[in-house]
Amino acid sequence: MRIGVLGAGQLGRMLALAGYPLAKTFVFYDMSGSPSAGLGEVIIDREGQYLDDFLSRVDRVTYEFEHLPVDVAEKIATHKPVHPCPRALQVCQNREAEKTLFGELGIPTPEWKIAESAASLKAAAEELGCPVVAKSNTEGYDGKGQAVLKSPEEAEAAWASIGHPRLIVEKFVDFHREVSIIAVRAEDGELAFYPMAENTHHEGILRYSIAPAPKLEKHVQEDAERYIKALLNELDYVGVLTLELFETTDGLVANEMAPRVHNSGHWTIEGAMTSQFENHIRAVSGHPLGNVAPRGLSCMINIIGEHGDIERILELPYAHVHLYNKGERPGRKLGHVNILADSYEELVWRVKNCAQFLPGSPEFKSSLTPKG
Amino acid sequence: MRIGVLGAGQLGRMLALAGYPLAKTFVFYDMSGSPSAGLGEVIIDREGQYLDDFLSRVDRVTYEFEHLPVDVAEKIATHKPVHPCPRALQVCQNREAEKTLFGELGIPTPEWKIAESAASLKAAAEELGCPVVAKSNTEGYDGKGQAVLKSPEEAEAAWASIGHPRLIVEKFVDFHREVSIIAVRAEDGELAFYPMAENTHHEGILRYSIAPAPKLEKHVQEDAERYIKALLNELDYVGVLTLELFETTDGLVANEMAPRVHNSGHWTIEGAMTSQFENHIRAVSGHPLGNVAPRGLSCMINIIGEHGDIERILELPYAHVHLYNKGERPGRKLGHVNILADSYEELVWRVKNCAQFLPGSPEFKSSLTPKG
Repeated sequence: MRIGVLGAGQLGRMLALAGYPLAKTFVFYDMSGSPSAGLGEVIIDREGQYLDDFLSRVDRVTYEFEHLPVDVAEKIATHKPVHPCPRALQVCQNREAEKTLFGELGIPTPEWKIAESAASLKAAAEELGCPVVAKSNTEGYDGKGQAVLKSPEEAEAAWASIGHPRLIVEKFVDFHREVSIIAVRAEDGELAFYPMAENTHHEGILRYSIAPAPKLEKHVQEDAERYIKALLNELDYVGVLTLELFETTDGLVANEMAPRVHNSGHWTIEGAMTSQFENHIRAVSGHPLGNVAPRGLSCMINIIGEHGDIERILELPYAHVHLYNKGERPGRKLGHVNILADSYEELVWRVKNCAQFLPGSPEFKSSLTPKG
Repeated sequence: MRIGVLGAGQLGRMLALAGYPLAKTFVFYDMSGSPSAGLGEVIIDREGQYLDDFLSRVDRVTYEFEHLPVDVAEKIATHKPVHPCPRALQVCQNREAEKTLFGELGIPTPEWKIAESAASLKAAAEELGCPVVAKSNTEGYDGKGQAVLKSPEEAEAAWASIGHPRLIVEKFVDFHREVSIIAVRAEDGELAFYPMAENTHHEGILRYSIAPAPKLEKHVQEDAERYIKALLNELDYVGVLTLELFETTDGLVANEMAPRVHNSGHWTIEGAMTSQFENHIRAVSGHPLGNVAPRGLSCMINIIGEHGDIERILELPYAHVHLYNKGERPGRKLGHVNILADSYEELVWRVKNCAQFLPGSPEFKSSLTPKG
């Protein structure tokens, strides 16, 4: 079976690496002109003129990023099966639609309001109670198009800095930690849920994911599974879906979802019986799902901006190196290292030992490290 | 770093799958015209006219089969580093040279003699004592160019059937089981040894490898490590080397070596911390070696001739499917399944359960199953 992947970055690369052993072949379709997948055939199409050619060479289509124009995905879906469905894209591209769907499905979210002017942003901040986070309703990602308002008086400046005609304003969530759940749904509706990961961000970029998340109560995993299951079934979704959440004293609060394999699931390559990449390919291809049970404890460390001393990391007997073969640039995701261990104590020690060879890495902090 | 691979079959394919995450790229050079690697660039060169082009596009060269002409390997080595060294090829292509080297290094072999006529074959059979195995000294592989003589009177017919001017005649070894050891040596001489595998053949083709080999006494693993270490150091070898052995009441007896990743090491993909493929790429690229410790117990089942019911196998929570994307043909290696377990009892049950979906598979027999 020939899989067409819209996008040609590291997620596409890792989908292909997982898919070749299942006898899949891959064609990447890239509209940006800077493919980095590095394996498989890549069609670069800045003008949109080779889409038919791409479609003639694949049996099923998936994507590795959610900022794909929905009308393109819908057009493709009239020719070849597209998984996940274009509706998932549509929801993810519109924060209001996403939060509304969460609400309809009983998935807790921060309190939120829509603002369409500086004045209504100020009113929203007053009603919700500061601090609030204002985000462009569409087109924002990776912390772009956002502003934190510590008081309603900052509304004018925030409105100007974001420069978007429609904002979603969210009450700030007082959370213990950020977590995520990754789940996969097959064509026949079969479901599988990976154990949740605890995620640490730094300057808006994911740095560490520990899985299974330490000190996680059973009912919290069950709540997350119930929420993502509702989304998967509502969307008649096929493939891997990620839901990012905050853990608070009052339980889980959903942040956002991503209709794809996710950085917080890279630990599954060595840390689970079946990786998120293989399970996505299985689902998209119509196969049964693979076992999502963990294999020991894992921590994924992102390699950001510069590669550091990879040779020293290759010497560590508990580290698995995954490079994306990209050039160094501040803030760029260049690869990740998966650390394996049998206890969380051992895991923390190993992560710290590895991180010293990655100069860009912030100090490792997690629910496992003493508060400083 | 760009790795050139001589040959483009499933071993090259799995080398590439392991090498991409280390930021390697791959160019395959195939002289047969039937590449099956399926990823990376393939140069098909039946006439031998594109070798310079191939060499200009790679930094280091390795190979996936040992029947490569030594003079080609030597020519390549004057342009680019070739690992393993051409001398390893030379030794593997000549059974007399291989057995002589084994003898010099203190590695036990079956008693053997050279025969250059039907008469000397008969004399060798008489001196060694039948049964003996006669093999063409060069050019034979996978059980081709061989004959078993149950009595010296069969010498004339055997000589005619093999049709080779120089034979090696080996006394038959009375063995409990076939085993193999896979080791890897880095550029700086660092060594690592995988736990030995127990191998079951059927009609001359490997069918099952269990690793770590069950009921293996510690001194047997140590003997095998001593033997393969002697070979690696003598050849100043860089990369993965495989030594196939018989286990007898008098200890290990070497059968043959292969200067490459080996079918009896495919279990390492999920069954070891670092696969044989990644370790070969690490060695060839000048990196430190990866951890060879096992992750639980493994059994590799080859998929031979026909694919069987892969969908059913994909449902098994303990099975990992590795397909080579090749067409079905009797006796052809189409893929393998790695089965994982925490106990040998569980492993046997799981292997039998999986093998029922592979119609070509012989009944599972190993040192773990009762003798029938």
